[in-house]
Amino acid sequence: MSGTDVAVAQDDGRAARAFWSALVEPGDAVAGALVQACGAVASLGWVAHAVAAGRPDWSVLAGSTGHLDDALRRRVEVAVRRWAARWPSVDPARDLAVAARCGARLVVPGDDAWPAVLDDLGAVAPFALWVRGEDPRVRRSVALVGARACTTYGERVAVDLATDLARSGWVVVSGGAYGIDAAAHRGAVLVGGPTVVVLAGGVDRPYPAGNARLLEEVVRAGGTLVSEVPPGSTPTRGRFLQRNRLIAAMSRATVVVEAAWRSGAASTAHHAAGLLRPVGAVPGPVTSAASAGCHRLLRDGVAVCVTDASEVMELAGDVGRDAAPGHADAEVRALDGLEPAARQVHDGLSRRVARDTQQVAARAGTSAAEARAMLGLLELEGLAHRRGSGWVAGVGTEARSGEKKRRS
Amino acid sequence: MSGTDVAVAQDDGRAARAFWSALVEPGDAVAGALVQACGAVASLGWVAHAVAAGRPDWSVLAGSTGHLDDALRRRVEVAVRRWAARWPSVDPARDLAVAARCGARLVVPGDDAWPAVLDDLGAVAPFALWVRGEDPRVRRSVALVGARACTTYGERVAVDLATDLARSGWVVVSGGAYGIDAAAHRGAVLVGGPTVVVLAGGVDRPYPAGNARLLEEVVRAGGTLVSEVPPGSTPTRGRFLQRNRLIAAMSRATVVVEAAWRSGAASTAHHAAGLLRPVGAVPGPVTSAASAGCHRLLRDGVAVCVTDASEVMELAGDVGRDAAPGHADAEVRALDGLEPAARQVHDGLSRRVARDTQQVAARAGTSAAEARAMLGLLELEGLAHRRGSGWVAGVGTEARSGEKKRRS
Repeated sequence: MSGTDVAVAQDDGRAARAFWSALVEPGDAVAGALVQACGAVASLGWVAHAVAAGRPDWSVLAGSTGHLDDALRRRVEVAVRRWAARWPSVDPARDLAVAARCGARLVVPGDDAWPAVLDDLGAVAPFALWVRGEDPRVRRSVALVGARACTTYGERVAVDLATDLARSGWVVVSGGAYGIDAAAHRGAVLVGGPTVVVLAGGVDRPYPAGNARLLEEVVRAGGTLVSEVPPGSTPTRGRFLQRNRLIAAMSRATVVVEAAWRSGAASTAHHAAGLLRPVGAVPGPVTSAASAGCHRLLRDGVAVCVTDASEVMELAGDVGRDAAPGHADAEVRALDGLEPAARQVHDGLSRRVARDTQQVAARAGTSAAEARAMLGLLELEGLAHRRGSGWVAGVGTEARSGEKKRRS
Repeated sequence: MSGTDVAVAQDDGRAARAFWSALVEPGDAVAGALVQACGAVASLGWVAHAVAAGRPDWSVLAGSTGHLDDALRRRVEVAVRRWAARWPSVDPARDLAVAARCGARLVVPGDDAWPAVLDDLGAVAPFALWVRGEDPRVRRSVALVGARACTTYGERVAVDLATDLARSGWVVVSGGAYGIDAAAHRGAVLVGGPTVVVLAGGVDRPYPAGNARLLEEVVRAGGTLVSEVPPGSTPTRGRFLQRNRLIAAMSRATVVVEAAWRSGAASTAHHAAGLLRPVGAVPGPVTSAASAGCHRLLRDGVAVCVTDASEVMELAGDVGRDAAPGHADAEVRALDGLEPAARQVHDGLSRRVARDTQQVAARAGTSAAEARAMLGLLELEGLAHRRGSGWVAGVGTEARSGEKKRRS
């Protein structure tokens, strides 16, 4: 970049953050700590001086250096050498122009559009976000992540979860990859719900290329593409791994739908756990390698088992407000509401052979008085009927079973 | 029963326990507490007197009554009325004769064959076991339980787990029901392993009838049928529920393979948890109602997620000795063993385009010196190759990937 650009960046926090986002690799905690301590503008000016002079000179930072302890200064002095290697190729004016051409913009801390939840990342918070589409709405958001090589089972579950979450007003966050990520975005788009795609490369570079159309649909449906690296940046292995921390940080909870024993999705889950955000894992057949990573997260106690969108919302939501309802198709048996003694007496009945109270008591192991009392109760419930001088078992009244068919 | 039988039972602990096992329903904690406090013989004599006299008389127990507090006395006085209803039909001599005819025998506490682990049940421990086949060997035992209405997935998992457990010398305990129970017993029998069937009715009454042949095979293969109720007893709902506590108590851990949202298998799991024994649940597709109970146990924190026999043995076994090995088919990538800086430099390489050290450093976000050092490391690992004056990415040496193919 030219000297003029540096001068601009030193005066302008936005430009400085654009510069930082191009200068250092995502997750560079040394740069993050320096910017936290001295501000994006002043610290960039100091780096500019160190690069130009060929040696770091702390006196340039003047008043701000009080926040820098000796350990951090030493780490910064080492880091300046790696930043210097990339310095000549950084050009925020070019990056902003490329962004403008593809309909993207820069969002920095302090902007209304800045997701404040990212600040939980501390020194590894991104310097800025490059955004295409709507502002990243992340008040009630949940990450759905998983294997590229997913099964049809995992794909179906991801689409169903995303659809139900989007219908309930939740924003689905994922990484735009093949497999579970794509299914999650697609599920949200299907019902017109906003979804956030966190990319490892520039927002002008749909990756993978096969998902380019899906990413355009995300933007058209009111969703968002975000990246912490400038347009034009290529997605690299390191950026994929660091991208996972952004997915976790932008979401109130992270749910792994399918994942192999080792996987990027598991790394996202661990980032979420590190941020003390809830983590869920969808179980699958133990015979499926695509669920091995989910089962590992469950075994290790990193994740809670989630099986449907209501459980995901309970995980991600506010206590009480978002509690999952009882299992809708839970079986309710007519005998369940009865006291133990009544169930015991019912055991002493036959459906075919009538027995007198004494016989029922002997079979049930109760006293005759207790059997008599409980038979009266059972009769009211339609669970015992008189036949001659004895009793036979019933199956419960229709009214009763209808009335209690659903737990709530 | 005749007065002579009562007299015998009062002199003979075995006969007294046979009597108690017929007189009261399984899990009658009042009877259990009375027998614990006064002994099977003395307490039976006292009940005989109370039944004959039509009223309880504590003076009959003389010396032993010191262990009975007032609350228990009151509960016993109520219980005597229910025991009296069944009293005339109890006939241990007949029960022992029926047992002898079907090759069964009585096992009581103090016998070598008595599974001492049952004593953990306290007041609800069984008075005796009626046993067919080998002595119930339960030193290293694990319960595999689950739905009658299982899926082919659950059946396959149950057979595989039981087979692998039996091969490793573990005794599989289950309830002899259709579905998961039967699959578990069958898996053990398949490899000639002993398995214990805990029945809710008499050991002379194979239940369900469709499993009669399987139960005979269990006995022939060195396994065991046990019940706490005498031969001839019918299995009732209450006895099925109480039988579950015996399955849990006879096993070092209980694993639920498949279970509906509400199920007997879940009740066995809760019994095991109540005994502070480990509980495992096998996950399955969230789209399968047959796994809903397993997922509920995982969500509620009652069960640990288990996916194969080694994880079951780790759950049930001794710490260290039975630890599950690492996942056999875990994917290992050539880059995993590298330090972060080397991985970062590798990100700066292309497979097609050669780049010089300065370019690699700029792309990777490292200093030129660091890039140079890491490129040397990467070259040794086959992950970087010189081309002209620059570098291209490699995929790692064969030797390296072969050598680290398996975690251990």
